[in-house]
Amino acid sequence: MRILVVGGNAAGLSAASKARRTAADVEILVLERGRDISYAQCGLPYLLSGMVADEAALVHFTPAGIMRERGIEVRTGHHVTALRLSEHQVLGERTDGTPFAEPYDRLILATGARPRVPPALSPPASNVFTLHTYQDLRRLRVFLAAQKPPRVTIVGASYLGLEMAEAFRTLGLAVTVLEAAPQPLPGFDSPLASLAADELARNNVHLMLERPASALDIDGGGICRAVVGDWGSQHCDAVLLALGVRPNVELAEQAHLRLGPTGAIPTDRRLATERPGVFACGDCAETVHLVTGKPTWVPLGSTANKQGRVAGANAVGGDESFPGVVGTAGLRLFNLEMARTGLSLREAQASGFEAAVVTITAPSRAAYMRGASEITISLVVESATRRILGAHAAGKEGVAKRVDLFAVAAAQGLTADDVAGWDLSYAPPFAPVWDPVLVAANVARRR
Amino acid sequence: MRILVVGGNAAGLSAASKARRTAADVEILVLERGRDISYAQCGLPYLLSGMVADEAALVHFTPAGIMRERGIEVRTGHHVTALRLSEHQVLGERTDGTPFAEPYDRLILATGARPRVPPALSPPASNVFTLHTYQDLRRLRVFLAAQKPPRVTIVGASYLGLEMAEAFRTLGLAVTVLEAAPQPLPGFDSPLASLAADELARNNVHLMLERPASALDIDGGGICRAVVGDWGSQHCDAVLLALGVRPNVELAEQAHLRLGPTGAIPTDRRLATERPGVFACGDCAETVHLVTGKPTWVPLGSTANKQGRVAGANAVGGDESFPGVVGTAGLRLFNLEMARTGLSLREAQASGFEAAVVTITAPSRAAYMRGASEITISLVVESATRRILGAHAAGKEGVAKRVDLFAVAAAQGLTADDVAGWDLSYAPPFAPVWDPVLVAANVARRR
Repeated sequence: MRILVVGGNAAGLSAASKARRTAADVEILVLERGRDISYAQCGLPYLLSGMVADEAALVHFTPAGIMRERGIEVRTGHHVTALRLSEHQVLGERTDGTPFAEPYDRLILATGARPRVPPALSPPASNVFTLHTYQDLRRLRVFLAAQKPPRVTIVGASYLGLEMAEAFRTLGLAVTVLEAAPQPLPGFDSPLASLAADELARNNVHLMLERPASALDIDGGGICRAVVGDWGSQHCDAVLLALGVRPNVELAEQAHLRLGPTGAIPTDRRLATERPGVFACGDCAETVHLVTGKPTWVPLGSTANKQGRVAGANAVGGDESFPGVVGTAGLRLFNLEMARTGLSLREAQASGFEAAVVTITAPSRAAYMRGASEITISLVVESATRRILGAHAAGKEGVAKRVDLFAVAAAQGLTADDVAGWDLSYAPPFAPVWDPVLVAANVARRR
Repeated sequence: MRILVVGGNAAGLSAASKARRTAADVEILVLERGRDISYAQCGLPYLLSGMVADEAALVHFTPAGIMRERGIEVRTGHHVTALRLSEHQVLGERTDGTPFAEPYDRLILATGARPRVPPALSPPASNVFTLHTYQDLRRLRVFLAAQKPPRVTIVGASYLGLEMAEAFRTLGLAVTVLEAAPQPLPGFDSPLASLAADELARNNVHLMLERPASALDIDGGGICRAVVGDWGSQHCDAVLLALGVRPNVELAEQAHLRLGPTGAIPTDRRLATERPGVFACGDCAETVHLVTGKPTWVPLGSTANKQGRVAGANAVGGDESFPGVVGTAGLRLFNLEMARTGLSLREAQASGFEAAVVTITAPSRAAYMRGASEITISLVVESATRRILGAHAAGKEGVAKRVDLFAVAAAQGLTADDVAGWDLSYAPPFAPVWDPVLVAANVARRR
């Protein structure tokens, strides 16, 4: 029995490791296109800014280590270029250009995602970057060390865009962020997005809204001099494109696997695709949204790790389930912690819910304690039932794990009335007697 | 219609305020025995230590203010001494000794709790204290300012005992804590209690375990010179008794209201007592434990506030429910945040569950991030079903709101398998890709 995994990061290696723990005797081969495996991709902005205490800690495993410790063979520099599903075989090309073919009994697709870069912003330039892989970070660091650019322009006030804005500011660069939407972090309800905008301003990040980038002005030396739109142009010394990611599904598509409405690979609760013996997990896979019941695609490391385990167990005959997601995500932006779960009001309405939102502000600790700060929560409920559809929050401390409480409520189909009765921890140094979670639920009940 | 509330703190004033919001036209009278109302009792240790930013913020309302803003009459210095339930009347005595009688249509008992002091430790001494009311704190502060005692002995490594140990250390006193049990915080599972003991040691609090106090050695001048037990004696300059609290139920008892197995006043989901028109809420009331389904008594400000609202609404004809509690509680001890919910292993077994505990340690942030610290979680599950029965945790940050996630799981009857699938927020600055909550659930699944 041979398990073949395409992709050697979060989902792929979680799958391989779980398959090994479940079945000691199967052969497991992981093929990775790049030169790095098993690194904490979400840590890259913090590696740049110096917030990572130990650079080596970002890489969990080397191929030699994972073979030694888990008996999993990982081949880097192995680019799979075609799936031959009928023949149970994959074809590919090594970095040196030599072809390879590998048979399998079970196939796990963990091909991940890659930065979304519109064609107009694609022409190569030596000072234009994306940041998705360790290799991307290496290229950026070499550039920063050699060129010492005083100014960087980030295209996209996405999670990554803003995390990188902080990293660049920490390094002392002047930072401008161009965003097409009228607010940063377009997935957040606007009261929360405003708090993010304030935090950027406080930290001297120049945020320019409603500034879609339509072209790069690249000089004869292959250097981008400005980001251009119909609004004018923004001069720059370096550019980071942070317009989100899209799933790597070309292999699946060429093998005639149907893609889902999100553009990713549809999976069932066992993370099986429509083809027997073929699983998909991580950023290339579509899953179900537990609030809407519809297909969704929320590429995140936490989901990739969970899905990898499920796909790995099932590839060796297990029957584990991935329940789906509620779209929980968060970031820290300088001194502002932000998180969201479920649906925003706009998303709820687009999904056909009759919904309402309440926005409250309450202290993170007892209001009279030193160090207390405000947490703002926007809570989205179904109007008739007061079912929790989503929550968005921001504040200096204690935000994300409070949003997690709403993530549970949304996943379990609980109402604001249920939440209002919750027996949550209380002590003046970490919560007021009415926790912000309860305040939001109570206000939603009363409206 | 006249609503009479006995007790003018968290539960009583929440009840009065909710009754007012629900019914603008009823008369509401609150009788409070002491001179203070509406203050944050849990903030008293922090007022002593200087952690309270604004002393005035500890008092939410004065009687004049609550009359002006909410139309609620509050009379302080009014000690209710007897309930005449058949006559719908209460009798009492003012501070100046004059008697009073007040009729009512609906009665809300919010008589609270008071420090548990065994008779052997009761003889009055000028340097022996309890800390339950604002008045207690005033007396302690006057003593500290006048006598400047270098050493204090705290009897009881309870939540309050340890919060006060921190406060006294902050003020520069030498602190010894005597505890009868073999661990501090006897309600916590022992791995967590050990972390508390370590934190006390790190902060030069002298913790002496298995040292039950059986007497006070009081000299002819009425000064306690030592706390005495069969283990010897501990010299002291001041003593704080922190042996927990018990419900103030004498009024109810004398009026032939049946007391529950916990010693507090039984209530139904509407917080009605067995006598029509008589409600009980807060620290004097018994409620249901949502894990065991049995009566429980967990006196906490958060519960008192919630119960007050329910009792207040129902006293004026509403039909609100208090769902019960899962025994969630927490404290911050120097740099250690601790919280618990549900049942400890011992409590689970005593309640007839076949239960098991797993203890895990996982980082509060991505392990590679500066500032990451360890969170330890003991998770108690029912052996056969893996239903979450309780969780205890400690760490430097992000502990209590993670325990709240288990509080929800315990209240909802969810299993470790359910929890393992939760879509929790993840970003390197505030959570690892496998949140400690998920790690604990996964370990519980595998055992």
